[in-house]
Amino acid sequence: MTTGMLGVLLTPLRQIPSLNGPIFHAMKAGDPGCMDFGEAYFSLIDSGAIKGWKRHTRMTLNLVVPVGRIQFRVHDEAAGRFANIVLSPTDDYARLTVSPGLWMAFGGLDAQTSMLLNIADLPHDPAEAVTSELDRFRWEWAR
Amino acid sequence: MTTGMLGVLLTPLRQIPSLNGPIFHAMKAGDPGCMDFGEAYFSLIDSGAIKGWKRHTRMTLNLVVPVGRIQFRVHDEAAGRFANIVLSPTDDYARLTVSPGLWMAFGGLDAQTSMLLNIADLPHDPAEAVTSELDRFRWEWAR
Repeated sequence: MTTGMLGVLLTPLRQIPSLNGPIFHAMKAGDPGCMDFGEAYFSLIDSGAIKGWKRHTRMTLNLVVPVGRIQFRVHDEAAGRFANIVLSPTDDYARLTVSPGLWMAFGGLDAQTSMLLNIADLPHDPAEAVTSELDRFRWEWAR
Repeated sequence: MTTGMLGVLLTPLRQIPSLNGPIFHAMKAGDPGCMDFGEAYFSLIDSGAIKGWKRHTRMTLNLVVPVGRIQFRVHDEAAGRFANIVLSPTDDYARLTVSPGLWMAFGGLDAQTSMLLNIADLPHDPAEAVTSELDRFRWEWAR
């Protein structure tokens, strides 16, 4: 699966049914996009809210959405290109890998609060990320 | 924070408020319990359901509960001891590290389906885990 943008990779993930609740895969050592382990954290996003823009200069993101539905919008500023990717635990269960150098924003598409897990190859370091106001680049909801 | 059982470690985690939805820490390289990265996966547990028992012979578990409320019951068979640990994103937001060799079962304490994230130091390998029927060891709800 591909988004057509360099530095962005979409890897379908398995969900394993089980009597008392399923297992959702997230990332395994050796998987596409899996590099060193730096940090794992959750980010919650309210319905209709948008977080962004942010550009990491060294961190690779590995994003999984186990709750709700989140739209990711990635911008390659040098190439002048945008890509929209929607992830959820139902229709679109996949891992989105975003290489450093790309701008990203994400928005809550679900009626409830949505949640992403980021498994990053570096621990959080504000010095390696650049943030910008949301109106700097065009945001479009891909409902 | 400690459970009083050898091989079990409870590490309080931070939640960082933010306008459009908070950040929940899970694990950072160098944190207590963080070893190699093997695999990260979610396990969902229905309300009132119990998964277990399972004993890993080589895998260390790092368990975080971002959704709902889960009771973990750990059994040190050699010492004849049990420990109950309850995790949730609200009152008890912490990471539970479980060393290999201990039996574990977990149950859904929330009215809705609960979810855990396990960040393990090995990829899934059925050969390193032993499972047992739930009635082999005593389960007690710690409501």
